[in-house]
Amino acid sequence: MIIVLKPRTSERDIDRIVKRIRKFGLQPYVSKGKERTVIPVIGDERVLENVPFLSFPFVEKVMPILAPFKMVSREFHPKNTVVQARSLSVGGRKLAVIAGPCSVENREMVVKIARAVKKLGATGLRGGAFKPRTSPYSFQGLGEEGLRCLVAAREATGLAVVTEVIDTRHVELVARYADVLQVGARNMQNFELLKEVGKSGHPVLLKRGMSATIKEYLQAAEYVVHEGNDQVILCERGIRSGVEDYTRNTFDLVAISVLKELTHLPVMADPSHATGKWRYIEPASLAAVAAGADGIIVEVHLKPEEALSDGEQSILPGKFGSLMKSLRKVARAVGRTV
Amino acid sequence: MIIVLKPRTSERDIDRIVKRIRKFGLQPYVSKGKERTVIPVIGDERVLENVPFLSFPFVEKVMPILAPFKMVSREFHPKNTVVQARSLSVGGRKLAVIAGPCSVENREMVVKIARAVKKLGATGLRGGAFKPRTSPYSFQGLGEEGLRCLVAAREATGLAVVTEVIDTRHVELVARYADVLQVGARNMQNFELLKEVGKSGHPVLLKRGMSATIKEYLQAAEYVVHEGNDQVILCERGIRSGVEDYTRNTFDLVAISVLKELTHLPVMADPSHATGKWRYIEPASLAAVAAGADGIIVEVHLKPEEALSDGEQSILPGKFGSLMKSLRKVARAVGRTV
Amino acid sequence: MIIVLKPRTSERDIDRIVKRIRKFGLQPYVSKGKERTVIPVIGDERVLENVPFLSFPFVEKVMPILAPFKMVSREFHPKNTVVQARSLSVGGRKLAVIAGPCSVENREMVVKIARAVKKLGATGLRGGAFKPRTSPYSFQGLGEEGLRCLVAAREATGLAVVTEVIDTRHVELVARYADVLQVGARNMQNFELLKEVGKSGHPVLLKRGMSATIKEYLQAAEYVVHEGNDQVILCERGIRSGVEDYTRNTFDLVAISVLKELTHLPVMADPSHATGKWRYIEPASLAAVAAGADGIIVEVHLKPEEALSDGEQSILPGKFGSLMKSLRKVARAVGRTV
Amino acid sequence: MIIVLKPRTSERDIDRIVKRIRKFGLQPYVSKGKERTVIPVIGDERVLENVPFLSFPFVEKVMPILAPFKMVSREFHPKNTVVQARSLSVGGRKLAVIAGPCSVENREMVVKIARAVKKLGATGLRGGAFKPRTSPYSFQGLGEEGLRCLVAAREATGLAVVTEVIDTRHVELVARYADVLQVGARNMQNFELLKEVGKSGHPVLLKRGMSATIKEYLQAAEYVVHEGNDQVILCERGIRSGVEDYTRNTFDLVAISVLKELTHLPVMADPSHATGKWRYIEPASLAAVAAGADGIIVEVHLKPEEALSDGEQSILPGKFGSLMKSLRKVARAVGRTV
Repeated sequence: MIIVLKPRTSERDIDRIVKRIRKFGLQPYVSKGKERTVIPVIGDERVLENVPFLSFPFVEKVMPILAPFKMVSREFHPKNTVVQARSLSVGGRKLAVIAGPCSVENREMVVKIARAVKKLGATGLRGGAFKPRTSPYSFQGLGEEGLRCLVAAREATGLAVVTEVIDTRHVELVARYADVLQVGARNMQNFELLKEVGKSGHPVLLKRGMSATIKEYLQAAEYVVHEGNDQVILCERGIRSGVEDYTRNTFDLVAISVLKELTHLPVMADPSHATGKWRYIEPASLAAVAAGADGIIVEVHLKPEEALSDGEQSILPGKFGSLMKSLRKVARAVGRTV
Repeated sequence: MIIVLKPRTSERDIDRIVKRIRKFGLQPYVSKGKERTVIPVIGDERVLENVPFLSFPFVEKVMPILAPFKMVSREFHPKNTVVQARSLSVGGRKLAVIAGPCSVENREMVVKIARAVKKLGATGLRGGAFKPRTSPYSFQGLGEEGLRCLVAAREATGLAVVTEVIDTRHVELVARYADVLQVGARNMQNFELLKEVGKSGHPVLLKRGMSATIKEYLQAAEYVVHEGNDQVILCERGIRSGVEDYTRNTFDLVAISVLKELTHLPVMADPSHATGKWRYIEPASLAAVAAGADGIIVEVHLKPEEALSDGEQSILPGKFGSLMKSLRKVARAVGRTV
Repeated sequence: MIIVLKPRTSERDIDRIVKRIRKFGLQPYVSKGKERTVIPVIGDERVLENVPFLSFPFVEKVMPILAPFKMVSREFHPKNTVVQARSLSVGGRKLAVIAGPCSVENREMVVKIARAVKKLGATGLRGGAFKPRTSPYSFQGLGEEGLRCLVAAREATGLAVVTEVIDTRHVELVARYADVLQVGARNMQNFELLKEVGKSGHPVLLKRGMSATIKEYLQAAEYVVHEGNDQVILCERGIRSGVEDYTRNTFDLVAISVLKELTHLPVMADPSHATGKWRYIEPASLAAVAAGADGIIVEVHLKPEEALSDGEQSILPGKFGSLMKSLRKVARAVGRTV
Repeated sequence: MIIVLKPRTSERDIDRIVKRIRKFGLQPYVSKGKERTVIPVIGDERVLENVPFLSFPFVEKVMPILAPFKMVSREFHPKNTVVQARSLSVGGRKLAVIAGPCSVENREMVVKIARAVKKLGATGLRGGAFKPRTSPYSFQGLGEEGLRCLVAAREATGLAVVTEVIDTRHVELVARYADVLQVGARNMQNFELLKEVGKSGHPVLLKRGMSATIKEYLQAAEYVVHEGNDQVILCERGIRSGVEDYTRNTFDLVAISVLKELTHLPVMADPSHATGKWRYIEPASLAAVAAGADGIIVEVHLKPEEALSDGEQSILPGKFGSLMKSLRKVARAVGRTV
């Protein structure tokens, strides 16, 4: 940590802050420059995290040096973590492809979609039973009945089930049915939910919040891993940038490359939510794989125009098939397989 | 709702969409222009909300006309709602001033602060017992013990207690102690929590999410009101704009004026989180009142440099006193009292 | 400047960077921590500004300590600068009020508006002769004829003329007619234009770019002052935040308080562009003054619904009169006059 | 265009607006719904662009239907435009690769770099002679001497020269030396410069502004094409999103796919500025090509750690060579060549 003092800070004030730092067992090095005095602090600065140095009126700024996450970092654990859940494996050379409807609408539909995407190469099945919807008037999901439909689809295809959990009170219930617990973008900083899915021991797919920095995202993942659960899949799904006039969000693809460097956790991409429009899903998926993603999660529906949610960003199985074909070529070009 | 079709859409496709709309009991008016066919739909378009017209490949865009919220809107309820909770009244001519520490650290401290701010004119007491923290290594709050401290402070001063709830499982517990349940910015779209505080019947202070549009914010409030609870206080607390290099967030003060026009719910401002620096709290508070805020919520601490959270944005009681003085003058200038 | 090295950087590499720094006459203090080596550099770090330390693969990050601007900073020049141009004085106790049409449309109209706003208390006249328009199909301004109309209005009222210059080739021409040269938001980083208006010696009103940080904004102002011209008025006019669904931009009012602390230059506010809607101009103006603005610049039109540009954010003289009345009250509340 | 009126708008007001629209020769269709009256306007709505309907107090919102650009749109000109300049061809099946230093520092250096990148497959040479720098204290470029160095490099290699022009007064000069005139991100809305490069008839590489929407970007391109010059190359170079903590900007790769759909102009990608860090340039480049880019423009330097600008995002020729190798594979996977 580096503490920068305002010009003309008195010796007495410098002394106060030096004593404060030493109290925590750390070593401050006061360096007096022409315009500013700066105090680099040597030692594990994380012990100072809760100290509000800025509340001293003579402190100008405080700059942390270490990243604020630990167990998720590559320095802590250099080798790639591979998350496994039945048919699904994320983080190895082979790309993961999770496909399925936005919401589970009925048993027949989800079984049909699961069969279709399985045949075309999907390795996991997605589908929402509990839906976080912006409006209270939108379809809120089938709840436990939806989970049962997903299990039926798993029985029919062997595909691992990935489904969202939106309430700490549902974690146990959802974990009873699902293979991977998804925490959605809006809940990325629902810390109680993060702790609870961490405790569940179940694999977790944690989506990036739509205005989260990389640092905040990795701190959210740290919450899960900190509970003893390192089976965490990260997933970039688009951010809000303020310039998106033709897409739902801005797909931050380089974040994937950055995350792959900073953390050992696998990183997927969600082109459906990132773009919000079915016609950009293929180029967005290819770009994600080229940027280093460990897989994609994509919305597929049999009749997008009748979907109860996200129809405008769902693709038909036929389109999913041609996406898989293109994906295979780009994967090979970057040394991966599908 | 207006549906815009792509150039050269066939009569057959126009017919398909017209039938789809009529099925919902609404009236489409097909208007063929030189470059585009547009279809205004007359009737309560909210019944079409779940229909993904964009999934038809010949649909170019879909533009809603009505706001996606109803019970919180001024059209629905033209008169100002005044939220009442013991000493606290928000939405009338007199401004509400809620003050107190970021986190409750111990009983003595919170009682002392409550006494100090009460004497200087505060009408409510804030303080966190359950804390949503970005890092799992940060102080997470005292939990129920913190709630007991707040009650002790209320007994000593009569000030209504405003405290955050971060988990659906805690709503009942927190409601047993607190007068107003706060839902924080990171939980603005934690829809299960919104429903639960709605059902509690307790007054709710709902903060704006840091990348939420006005529309999304009012839809979140609609979740609470939709459960039969119209005792909702809104609170602008700063957004993430991408240009904040000297403040923690960007204080979106005009949002207050916009909200006051669109909704009957009272609107407060949180200059502490919006700026993140104690030295901007006074001008930010005055600006909020000038923009039409119904009150402010501000962090006060006896020793900011030792606070377990948010010390850099907390002010001393002395500074709070001078803030109240300035606030009084600006309030009078805009026809309000403190 | 603080240079942070990656873990396990070799002694040889540390040595390379130390030598590099010494070559510039500065003193590096190598501090080896448990996890990172950091090198605070003492001396005027601005000499290192052009050195890309990050291109060394063993450098993790580089953190500047000093602000990257100098002549505009309050440390360099503690006293407020007051900019004077005929009737207009910006930066003193009395607030400046610059009013007028977005575009100059004809002589009669601008003279009429000037007379109306003068009578109601304006101290400067705004009006665009050269217009930077997003679309090539929009009205581009009357050019020199527009400047002549503005001069006619000045002759009729004595109001100082503030008008935009959008091309280095026009600076001399515009300076021949206008009292204050405005550089618009889109040209905030048109560095050649900044140099040219700097050289002109004319007072300059420099608007903040819509995605400019405070630092970038002050560096832009530094370009002008660096040419020997310290008659610079800053003006916050709204930023693009990504959450503006009911306003044109997000008015960053706390930026005004921050700027007043960092620089000696006067700071105005433009509620017309910041909100984009006439009905928010009054609360936005009052908030700006409460936040510490030295004045406002506001669009007034006789027939907004026929204006050739910005009609939706222009107010009628009557509304301007009642704005002045409210402004007077808030100004008094914060120790200013109008 | 659709005009939405406020609830309870009087017949008289509806009449006023209907008359206003008819005056422009367009046909309004008044549709009275339960909650709102909406008026779709049939005909070329672009004639209404300058009419501020929102200034009528009874108008709630105005929604354009047509895109605000015309000559750059694919509807207007369905076939891909291929921009040609000596060795450089952008928009065909073969990808363009423009490489070179950020700034031209001296003749020897630029000739060496040109030779190196030519040998490795570059088809164009970049290099700045006039530099737009955030700080007046940064290196501002060699000016005309820099242009001469670039010409020397072209003579040595045959590579087309792409260089930035930052002032309307320099367009003629720069056009005398360069093959392609670059307009930088900060000048994307410097409309006078756009007109001037349009008039020059020279091929133009127009970078996207860092907070520009797609619409604004295409309107900027329309300025150039409107002057009769359709030799315009677009280039996504990263936007400011507010969440970039590990990169300089956010690379908006899906914008490339969107642009390729909306316009006939070729679209390149600048991974150097978009990421700001040399270690992300390869994945970002591959992703750009996978997303449909017609080529990349990348900064290469012989000694990045001594570069006078952008050293941290420049790569060595060796790294450029391996980038070209990877690029070749991904290009093939998406049906392109390098």
